[in-house]
Amino acid sequence: MSLVFHQTPERAAIWREKFASARPDMPFHVWPETGPKEDVRYLVAWKTPDDLATLFPNLEVLFSLGAGIDQLNLANIPPGVQIIRMVENSLVEGMIEYVLWAVFSCHRDMFRYARQQREHVWNGSHNRPARLYRVGVMGMGELGSPVLEKLVALGYDCRGWSRSRREVAGVTSFAGEAELDEFLAQTDILVCLVPLTEATRGILNSNLFEKLPKGACIINCGRGGHLVQDDLIPALDSGQLSQAVLDVATPEPLPAEHPFWDHPRIFLTPHIASAAQSDSAAEVVLANLRRYEAGESMTGVIDTGRGY
Amino acid sequence: MSLVFHQTPERAAIWREKFASARPDMPFHVWPETGPKEDVRYLVAWKTPDDLATLFPNLEVLFSLGAGIDQLNLANIPPGVQIIRMVENSLVEGMIEYVLWAVFSCHRDMFRYARQQREHVWNGSHNRPARLYRVGVMGMGELGSPVLEKLVALGYDCRGWSRSRREVAGVTSFAGEAELDEFLAQTDILVCLVPLTEATRGILNSNLFEKLPKGACIINCGRGGHLVQDDLIPALDSGQLSQAVLDVATPEPLPAEHPFWDHPRIFLTPHIASAAQSDSAAEVVLANLRRYEAGESMTGVIDTGRGY
Repeated sequence: MSLVFHQTPERAAIWREKFASARPDMPFHVWPETGPKEDVRYLVAWKTPDDLATLFPNLEVLFSLGAGIDQLNLANIPPGVQIIRMVENSLVEGMIEYVLWAVFSCHRDMFRYARQQREHVWNGSHNRPARLYRVGVMGMGELGSPVLEKLVALGYDCRGWSRSRREVAGVTSFAGEAELDEFLAQTDILVCLVPLTEATRGILNSNLFEKLPKGACIINCGRGGHLVQDDLIPALDSGQLSQAVLDVATPEPLPAEHPFWDHPRIFLTPHIASAAQSDSAAEVVLANLRRYEAGESMTGVIDTGRGY
Repeated sequence: MSLVFHQTPERAAIWREKFASARPDMPFHVWPETGPKEDVRYLVAWKTPDDLATLFPNLEVLFSLGAGIDQLNLANIPPGVQIIRMVENSLVEGMIEYVLWAVFSCHRDMFRYARQQREHVWNGSHNRPARLYRVGVMGMGELGSPVLEKLVALGYDCRGWSRSRREVAGVTSFAGEAELDEFLAQTDILVCLVPLTEATRGILNSNLFEKLPKGACIINCGRGGHLVQDDLIPALDSGQLSQAVLDVATPEPLPAEHPFWDHPRIFLTPHIASAAQSDSAAEVVLANLRRYEAGESMTGVIDTGRGY
């Protein structure tokens, strides 16, 4: 039995070395090289080849390199194949850094000071303390919960919303469709960290923006598909939203002629909020492989019914 | 005996209310109104009137509204007057927010992404984890130490430098002139939080920049006087420094024609990193007054020999 790694050559080099030392018994192939296709039991990939079922007839486990699996076409993945997403510490750390940076930027008026600098204007305003800022995080999973813990530690007045109820110390939690409006009405800075599923596609739209307090900020570090892009600029121009920080877009890269680039209330980053580090990601997959071979349950197993 | 408050009317309103409820026995005057001058024992001020000795012959305590006292002209303050600086929690919280924001901005390339956005360029680079970033904080006092604690908790590789040795858990500490060069040689992001004294005026100069690793970032949230402004742009243009984040300048406001405004590697904010909140600052002074009247020692007493 063998493993195929399907990603960039730079990352492959790190993985190959890790596997060579930890699992010299396991043939490690870097796509498009695969060895005998019927030997392939494990595939590590961000996106998969289209014809997976015929390509690797004995595939057992697909290890996604992302925290989400929305980049995968589930219809192409044979039903017997387990799908595992990446649960890895540097992914969490990167997201914490990004969200704290974006929340500070909104709370402390850093985008306004950047505009003032271009106009040579020195005009500071008195700070409002963090406890007067209501930060709401949509998604209280493996990214949202540690992000909320850090926000609480910094003194923000925190809320969380998730499909089913989750608890994080110091956070007022809301669950399901029934409590979404109440959550939104109390959120000055909204952070989107829900998985992208058919239920959450387009969740950031003009209807949702209207339910936020006037002048709210949104931070999207989920996926481009969470945002109805045509709804954003009208909400910013009317003042319903005062700022958007977007790490993701549709499509990526965002075309050079897209109006988001030049909008004064949009700050764009090129999908850099968070990524797994190759060395620790390889260790996560190695540990999961050991569990699988020992008949134990793996971490990060996807429920294909829920889609995350 | 009475107290004179010497600051803006908006702040005075908050202080007057606090004093009216906590100390109805203490006459509270808002400058330029003072009541009988010989009754004035306490002065609360950011800057003081010039002729303090003749103005208030019986002044006993001057409560500064800033964390530092460099804005005061010590020569004008009669020798018998105790000087107290502001040690107040929201001052610390504001500084933590600002420094974390600036460190994240440098570490996570946010200034580069801002430039790329203006050029419509979507080009992300792989993150380096926080543990590979060496953050060095100059000044390990009531601001530097809690800032270092938060940086350690976020995984940064932290160093601190102070005049006399201080310890913060997880931080490699350096002390005095003798250890400054070694501290600088290991610092990728330098944060200036020392008090402004004759010993630290101009400490951020070309000689210091040369001792940092090439491409280091500096964050000045001390005072404008810490930086030799003429030395900064050459260090940025040569690549010795890759970024400067400045919350302070000389003079303030920075004149509109100053070259800092348009430099692509300088991010300017208008002295907003941190300020005492009026309500909690008033409580700090009320608590110190109680201690003073009870013959106990106050918090934040300035040693005029050291200058902080």
